[in-house]
Amino acid sequence: MPTRNARVLFNEVPTGYPEPGKTDKYDDSQTIDLENVPLNGGFLVKILYLSIDPYMRGRMRAPTTKSYSPPFTIGEPLQNNGVGVIIRSENPDIKAGDHVHGFFPFQEYYVTANAKAYRVLPKDQNIPWSVYLGACGMTGKTAYYGWTAYAEAKKGETVFVSTGAGPVGSVVIQLAKKQGLKVIASAGSDEKVEFMKSIGADVAFNYKKESTKEVLEKNGPINIYWDHVGGQTLEAAIDAAAPYARFIECGMISQYNVSAENPPYAPKNLTQIVGKCLNLRGFLVTPLEEKYRDEFYATIPPMVAKGEIKFLEDITEGLEGTGKAIYEVQAGKNHGKSIIRVAAE
Amino acid sequence: MPTRNARVLFNEVPTGYPEPGKTDKYDDSQTIDLENVPLNGGFLVKILYLSIDPYMRGRMRAPTTKSYSPPFTIGEPLQNNGVGVIIRSENPDIKAGDHVHGFFPFQEYYVTANAKAYRVLPKDQNIPWSVYLGACGMTGKTAYYGWTAYAEAKKGETVFVSTGAGPVGSVVIQLAKKQGLKVIASAGSDEKVEFMKSIGADVAFNYKKESTKEVLEKNGPINIYWDHVGGQTLEAAIDAAAPYARFIECGMISQYNVSAENPPYAPKNLTQIVGKCLNLRGFLVTPLEEKYRDEFYATIPPMVAKGEIKFLEDITEGLEGTGKAIYEVQAGKNHGKSIIRVAAE
Repeated sequence: MPTRNARVLFNEVPTGYPEPGKTDKYDDSQTIDLENVPLNGGFLVKILYLSIDPYMRGRMRAPTTKSYSPPFTIGEPLQNNGVGVIIRSENPDIKAGDHVHGFFPFQEYYVTANAKAYRVLPKDQNIPWSVYLGACGMTGKTAYYGWTAYAEAKKGETVFVSTGAGPVGSVVIQLAKKQGLKVIASAGSDEKVEFMKSIGADVAFNYKKESTKEVLEKNGPINIYWDHVGGQTLEAAIDAAAPYARFIECGMISQYNVSAENPPYAPKNLTQIVGKCLNLRGFLVTPLEEKYRDEFYATIPPMVAKGEIKFLEDITEGLEGTGKAIYEVQAGKNHGKSIIRVAAE
Repeated sequence: MPTRNARVLFNEVPTGYPEPGKTDKYDDSQTIDLENVPLNGGFLVKILYLSIDPYMRGRMRAPTTKSYSPPFTIGEPLQNNGVGVIIRSENPDIKAGDHVHGFFPFQEYYVTANAKAYRVLPKDQNIPWSVYLGACGMTGKTAYYGWTAYAEAKKGETVFVSTGAGPVGSVVIQLAKKQGLKVIASAGSDEKVEFMKSIGADVAFNYKKESTKEVLEKNGPINIYWDHVGGQTLEAAIDAAAPYARFIECGMISQYNVSAENPPYAPKNLTQIVGKCLNLRGFLVTPLEEKYRDEFYATIPPMVAKGEIKFLEDITEGLEGTGKAIYEVQAGKNHGKSIIRVAAE
């Protein structure tokens, strides 16, 4: 019996911000026979949650432009981390009813034999499945790996975290507070500012209302800058940096959607990198997996389960909302980890 | 009997490039009594050589602007590393006839009791005294310390060295070649290009005749960039960087003399720091002294004495030429380590 297997396809390379329904295309023309689809030694997954992340903008490009992650293919589904439940399996290590975490196409059902690409999630951790896309997943790992590898944090130092209410920044704030640092954090709404205060930020501000440069001048200098923004925010952080400050370059979302209306901004004060002996370190989460994964799973999910790490989720119901959710993450209009709930269990 | 003690004073904070005779002022109004000047437990030095270095531009500023090195004082002599010979001494560790290396004001004679600030140079090393301001001095240390601490060089990798004919760059090229790296090097004249080839650069080019971006596209990607220039050259290096490339940020001379005629240039491609996991490391030589000094003196002067490290010197006769020499270093018109020969012995 055929069941709908809706998908969200990459439809067009955007200029500037992605446009819902133009950059992507919701397509419900395909079906799948859940009982009889051949598994070829693999398993059939019903996808429950899919993650929407800033880095996806970089994959929405022409295939001729090189970058660290492969471009999406026009006419094919978008892809990202997700959580699904196994409906049928021919793999003895993965059973029907198991929940798995890994990379999925944006669709409702998926058959794969690539078991190595998925992790079976424990059932007894008191953690909602969606959280394996946030604090217990890629964004939590990004915060934990980057902080552990590169912050060289010392008690009493000051860190500035941009996008501090986001799924990475909020974990960074909480890790920094546990180590005894003073935390300055920025976000784009008063609601996010309140959340950053609630998780321990000593100085939290709305960058749309207050000048980042002025806040840092008053509350700095900073020893660590966790950058999600680039552009003018990075420039202000360089101005406010103490000698030997570490800049953890996790993202530069202000520069991902440049266009005539949203022109790029190039920091003009890079000579301070020399004079202040700054260290700017770009990093990606995947190459750090092997070194820090076990430590992460031993540390963060138990803290999340006990409520010691707090976070916000911004859940969109149904694949149809994918394009809008992608746009909102690029424009900073989401309120917490952006997740598509593809289906209830 | 009074002897002339001419000085070069800091006269005016420059806008853009320093201007000989305007930014500085040669003053021969003072005298010194070499036989009777009180030493107060210290020593009297006849200054033989003074070094002219790019970083001096940063000290030619208003005292209200903070930076890593103190500003020069209007009406007081410029200061920098030099070599002198002791005429008289009341310090038992420093004898008349000894040659000392350290920080001096720009003048002909100097009395000081601060023995700790000076190093007595060995007499038997077959090294001209001036070289203790270059390959065996601050610029050689800059190359050796920075390369040793931060290059993480591996045989077979590719390094790009800007200002490769200069006193730091030329040592970097030779250290890199000894470690089996491929060296791409740039400079601003064909004569400098020939020198860079003679010391081992695999690809040497005149950036005024060839596009740095195109040369790097053709001969890269690069694993290490030794930056003396910043601006457009840094931007081209970021474009040509391999994943995990190390950027050793030693200087950004293209941005030190900005003015309406020589506007600043801000690299527009910093998002690649994230995507390529680049590491940009600013450094200064002084904070690395303690860690690397002994290793440096054990390694580099013997190599220089044996002719294993080659270098160029650009010697100006007499303190009167200081202003012009300073300008030429900022404008890239010098040909090798710029040194003022204050006096013959």
